[in-house]
Amino acid sequence: MSAFDAFPAEVEQWGCFEFRAAGPAAGNPFTEVRFAARFQFKHRVIEVDGFYDGNGEYCVRFMPDLPGRWSFETVSNAGELNGLTGEFQCVEPGPGNHGPVKVSRTYHFAYADGTPFVPVGTTCYVWNHQGEALEEQTLASLQQAPFNKIRMCVFPKHYDYNHREPERYPYAGSLSEGFDFSRFDPAYWRHLERRIRDLQALGIEADLILFHPYDRWGFASMEPDADDLYLRYAVARLAAYRNIWWSLANEYDLMGSKSMADWDRFFQIIQTSDPYQHLRSIHNWHNPEIHYRSNLHWYDHGKPWVTHASIQHHDLYFVTEWREQYKKPIVVDECRYEGNLNHGWGNITAEKMMDCFWEGMLRGGYVTHGETFVHPDDIIWWSHGGRLHGESAARIRFLREIVEAGPALDTPAIHFKWDAAAGGVDGEYYLLYFGASRPAFRVLELPEGISFEIELIDAWEMTITRLDGLFTNGSRVDLPGKPYQALRIRRVG
Amino acid sequence: MSAFDAFPAEVEQWGCFEFRAAGPAAGNPFTEVRFAARFQFKHRVIEVDGFYDGNGEYCVRFMPDLPGRWSFETVSNAGELNGLTGEFQCVEPGPGNHGPVKVSRTYHFAYADGTPFVPVGTTCYVWNHQGEALEEQTLASLQQAPFNKIRMCVFPKHYDYNHREPERYPYAGSLSEGFDFSRFDPAYWRHLERRIRDLQALGIEADLILFHPYDRWGFASMEPDADDLYLRYAVARLAAYRNIWWSLANEYDLMGSKSMADWDRFFQIIQTSDPYQHLRSIHNWHNPEIHYRSNLHWYDHGKPWVTHASIQHHDLYFVTEWREQYKKPIVVDECRYEGNLNHGWGNITAEKMMDCFWEGMLRGGYVTHGETFVHPDDIIWWSHGGRLHGESAARIRFLREIVEAGPALDTPAIHFKWDAAAGGVDGEYYLLYFGASRPAFRVLELPEGISFEIELIDAWEMTITRLDGLFTNGSRVDLPGKPYQALRIRRVG
Repeated sequence: MSAFDAFPAEVEQWGCFEFRAAGPAAGNPFTEVRFAARFQFKHRVIEVDGFYDGNGEYCVRFMPDLPGRWSFETVSNAGELNGLTGEFQCVEPGPGNHGPVKVSRTYHFAYADGTPFVPVGTTCYVWNHQGEALEEQTLASLQQAPFNKIRMCVFPKHYDYNHREPERYPYAGSLSEGFDFSRFDPAYWRHLERRIRDLQALGIEADLILFHPYDRWGFASMEPDADDLYLRYAVARLAAYRNIWWSLANEYDLMGSKSMADWDRFFQIIQTSDPYQHLRSIHNWHNPEIHYRSNLHWYDHGKPWVTHASIQHHDLYFVTEWREQYKKPIVVDECRYEGNLNHGWGNITAEKMMDCFWEGMLRGGYVTHGETFVHPDDIIWWSHGGRLHGESAARIRFLREIVEAGPALDTPAIHFKWDAAAGGVDGEYYLLYFGASRPAFRVLELPEGISFEIELIDAWEMTITRLDGLFTNGSRVDLPGKPYQALRIRRVG
Repeated sequence: MSAFDAFPAEVEQWGCFEFRAAGPAAGNPFTEVRFAARFQFKHRVIEVDGFYDGNGEYCVRFMPDLPGRWSFETVSNAGELNGLTGEFQCVEPGPGNHGPVKVSRTYHFAYADGTPFVPVGTTCYVWNHQGEALEEQTLASLQQAPFNKIRMCVFPKHYDYNHREPERYPYAGSLSEGFDFSRFDPAYWRHLERRIRDLQALGIEADLILFHPYDRWGFASMEPDADDLYLRYAVARLAAYRNIWWSLANEYDLMGSKSMADWDRFFQIIQTSDPYQHLRSIHNWHNPEIHYRSNLHWYDHGKPWVTHASIQHHDLYFVTEWREQYKKPIVVDECRYEGNLNHGWGNITAEKMMDCFWEGMLRGGYVTHGETFVHPDDIIWWSHGGRLHGESAARIRFLREIVEAGPALDTPAIHFKWDAAAGGVDGEYYLLYFGASRPAFRVLELPEGISFEIELIDAWEMTITRLDGLFTNGSRVDLPGKPYQALRIRRVG
């Protein structure tokens, strides 16, 4: 254990600095030993919780946000862990490191260095519980895919198509003998961290789901003390990874053992203990038969600790309304999945999945993909990862490239009619999408006195065709009269 | 005028008996002369308003509802029209004459003879204003089409694609010199009656729209006295045609000059003056941007004089809810039209139009078709009639045949999951439709202890395939994993 006090002399800005030290292994170090460190940059002091990593080893991680000289000093109720000091140099970020993602301009996102971040998510709930071979295949698939955010869970999943036991559990114990919710299994967490770093290397944000209802191990119904301990441990271990987002829950409203006060407390624990204020959200279940037309039973995304609304809803028309309601970014993290599953949430066409992305993004929100094709070995992207089989991902890449090439999309003052989803910057730039409607032509309302050039985009065929001439208010635009057409309208000169 | 007192000695049940007499031509016979008749069958006496038909000719029409001997006696404030008497024999109805359509079993319709009527509507708002050649073409098209109800207007239409003047007006006068709202033009009404009889011969109900907002002649903004006179005249002339339905308005909520009290009064005038109590409804406009999720601004279809809800809405999912709300038949008389028009209400695909029919009908409602393809001479089925160009009509016929072959569809107690529209009779018969979803299989919940046979229906390809074996609760049904599939599930034995 002589390497414990060794630590890197240099770490890049928004990289993960790590300091390890030997400490007590007796009793329950997870609950009995407090270990933290104060990191200092000039006048700024940031106190960060560390964590017990097993075998008498303690660790504290830190993500410095400014280049220059940082120092630290540990704080502990265990004498040998208290008052340890050191310093390191924070250097310029390496290629592809733009820092953590933050809310930008009310409805949008940007990395800490100011680079816009256009979330294009996918869903592989428990890909990180599937064992080495499948997990590596998932990473290889992600490398080829258009996604830069992934929804994934800390806890394993119990549900249709999800009956195999995971390789590791977050806690000491077993399904047969029960788990000790006061003792974590560091091997599990080291594996999770490895996967978060793998995602980081691919430029993918880990939208980490902390609770979910699909459980046979007891993780969904722990006592409040255990919940809180778990959250603090997760934050202490993971917050220094710049690509972490905190998703309090998948379908929180299906977790009968938690009250709204519990969710408020969970948010506050994370808000208080995460020194970097990573993005925080919570995701709803909603029964279309009951709540189809309302968000009555949603967690109130207007609460101050919610950074963005993470929404499950199949109708992207409402994105505009939710933006206005919450004045925060809207991420529709579930809108049914491309596939052919027996379940209604998992059997939409590739056209419909693509359509949700176009409508949601043009209305100024963001959308998350998922894939649910029946598979002989029950390996389904939505939960297990593996390979992508569908046809929407290519179209989502096409859309992502279009959106990233333009300005952030807001609701235009121009009224492009209700059968079109439209986003843009008034007088400058508009993206207009007709979805499954198929007008043969359109007379466009445009701002007076400005000339525009227009490209016709076929969202399904992935073609962009410049239309002849320039266009002004009242111009007629001929269209092919088939579904999934869009217009990119840009000011000339 | 010697033929005036001649009248038929025989009329079939639910046929139109007509008695004509000479009377005053001076002054304004439309407003100054009251002419009615009391028709008597045994102890029953039914007083029916007659009308002035021009050239000193008065007419009263009557639709007898029972076979046997009927007598009548006229009532008038003009001496020569008062106290005229006669009798006629009402005989059995001829082939295809089932009488007028009535509400049946709360949510459904049947002809007066008990034959179920499954409304399968279309929309040709002003086909009857288009001149002989086009009107005859429309009738020829209707003869080949699957529709048994047509939405059509008394007044001509002023709107995009509707700028030609009609051949006739309901009133004396002209666009340039104005119209006299106290004097009708009988030639117009005789033409309208001819078209209503033409429809009757084709087995088509005339869902006659009495007011609408698309006006350049002043018909949408008459004074209350003129409105009331108009309604009484229309009822007096037309109520004896068994295929009449009264639609108070198309998009009533766009008619700014009428108050809710006006609409109530209009309903009450018709309810009081129509001896046969033909079906009565009123149709809403609704702005999806404002009212997308509510029926807040609808006329209250729960009022006692409304026989069925005539609804404009693009989402047929809500039919179940509206049924429960109003406890009346739900007819979605507008849900966007198949076509490629520049307007959002007129550019959905044939698949979507078909999909609306399947979803609406399986949820226990009824749906109306329309077609809006750009045409070199602006002859568009939705307004002018002419020819059908789309692909949905054939699929609507296929569905109509399936629905007519089964029992009236109600909401089953069995929960077939929210991604399927389902209707049926519990324990006996179910129709289940997956729409644009595409499950590769389904495990069916079915009533315990009953065996069912199942046919797979491809709604778009119009095929019906019997699946091997029998099915019980928990049976797995393999499906082709493509959109627009349905199941017909019938009890065996």
